Amino acid sequence: MDFEENEKPVAVSPAVVKRLPRYYRYLRELIAQGRTRISSGELSALMNVTASQIRQDLNCFGGFGQQGYGYNVSYLFAKISEILGVGAGFHAIIIGAGDLGRALVHLSMFEKRGVDIVAMFDTGEGMVGKQFAGVDVLPLEELETFCTGQKVDIGVITCPKEQVRPIAERLVRIGIGGLWNYMGVELKYDPREIAVENVHLGDSLMILNYKIASRKHARQEELSPDGDPDTNPLDENDPDA
Amino acid sequence: MDFEENEKPVAVSPAVVKRLPRYYRYLRELIAQGRTRISSGELSALMNVTASQIRQDLNCFGGFGQQGYGYNVSYLFAKISEILGVGAGFHAIIIGAGDLGRALVHLSMFEKRGVDIVAMFDTGEGMVGKQFAGVDVLPLEELETFCTGQKVDIGVITCPKEQVRPIAERLVRIGIGGLWNYMGVELKYDPREIAVENVHLGDSLMILNYKIASRKHARQEELSPDGDPDTNPLDENDPDA
Repeated sequence: MDFEENEKPVAVSPAVVKRLPRYYRYLRELIAQGRTRISSGELSALMNVTASQIRQDLNCFGGFGQQGYGYNVSYLFAKISEILGVGAGFHAIIIGAGDLGRALVHLSMFEKRGVDIVAMFDTGEGMVGKQFAGVDVLPLEELETFCTGQKVDIGVITCPKEQVRPIAERLVRIGIGGLWNYMGVELKYDPREIAVENVHLGDSLMILNYKIASRKHARQEELSPDGDPDTNPLDENDPDA
Repeated sequence: MDFEENEKPVAVSPAVVKRLPRYYRYLRELIAQGRTRISSGELSALMNVTASQIRQDLNCFGGFGQQGYGYNVSYLFAKISEILGVGAGFHAIIIGAGDLGRALVHLSMFEKRGVDIVAMFDTGEGMVGKQFAGVDVLPLEELETFCTGQKVDIGVITCPKEQVRPIAERLVRIGIGGLWNYMGVELKYDPREIAVENVHLGDSLMILNYKIASRKHARQEELSPDGDPDTNPLDENDPDA
């Protein structure tokens, strides 16, 4: 396990990257508790992941863990934050100042991930000119002018469904970095054109429905093995859930 | 591959269940297009999943696919909907009538998944008594009275962070089926007590950040293999992404 300092971004496998946000949350909590180091065994118990999985996930960054010492919590958190683009200074705009857009602009999530919301856009007469959480709502016609005038990395899409594709097209032409699409309309682009992350809240609702239905069945069968919290496959503690 | 009709719920592995909402979305789209059947090869190309993965996922329900015929789209959709609790007649309440709660109550997502929002709850003087999308905002003190008076399956948690745990405790005591928690506070319960689905929007934001940062690196290296859309591991087309 060589640990080389270099400027090149660490190559992390996609399966590992998907698990990093969860490590990020647990490490943040440990820092809040004043912890400075943690063993893979303890992290394993906390996160309900095998210790070997943890070592496999974290060792690819280079020698974080040291035998008999464990992981340096702050260093690991800093490294994971860096890989996940926290503090990269990304700027976001929100398209749509409806209920969802306004809900998102008020969440501390952006600031905590180092993402700055620089404007909201809307077509509605009533919305343009208003401010939410200190962010101005601009008319949608000004999208191109605004985005060429300043750095914009992320477009958060919360506009009506029928406008999703035309607006995505405009943002691709402008050349921003990525789309965070909440509208359920599946957007597919060559990642060299634009990065896309589609949020499907309905998927999460259906998984919850499934869990509730499974509980009922489990109850009917009285403490069937499926009801065992430690083996419940869809428990939040399961990182793949 | 026996296909037996029986009343017992089909045993589906947790890994498969996690992939079902995505099949649900693609099948819904096919139905909207008037398609009645689809081969595993065609579904494979559409969803960017291997045909053998599709057969493995879908054959565990019993003989859907027939050699030379393909899958019956409506039957498959109905079966997946059933497993995912769509049409189970679940009732939901939303705790918190702030921006996020109001955004959610307006989404068609609930109705489309057969979930009926029966009330919202808030402590704010200004909110109680109002209606959003036809749903009344009731005072939080009435939570227990309301939930014992009628069937409530799902509590959608959008209240301020510091109230998340006490409210979750109250809902567990009431005995509702599940919590859909948007507030980033990790809730852990024995699934026999209550089902939990924690939505971590910040995780999705960080994965998008990562994708954007990766694009920049890929560009610097000019068309590196990572930039290939077909192999991009975090592309939305990858069901595990």
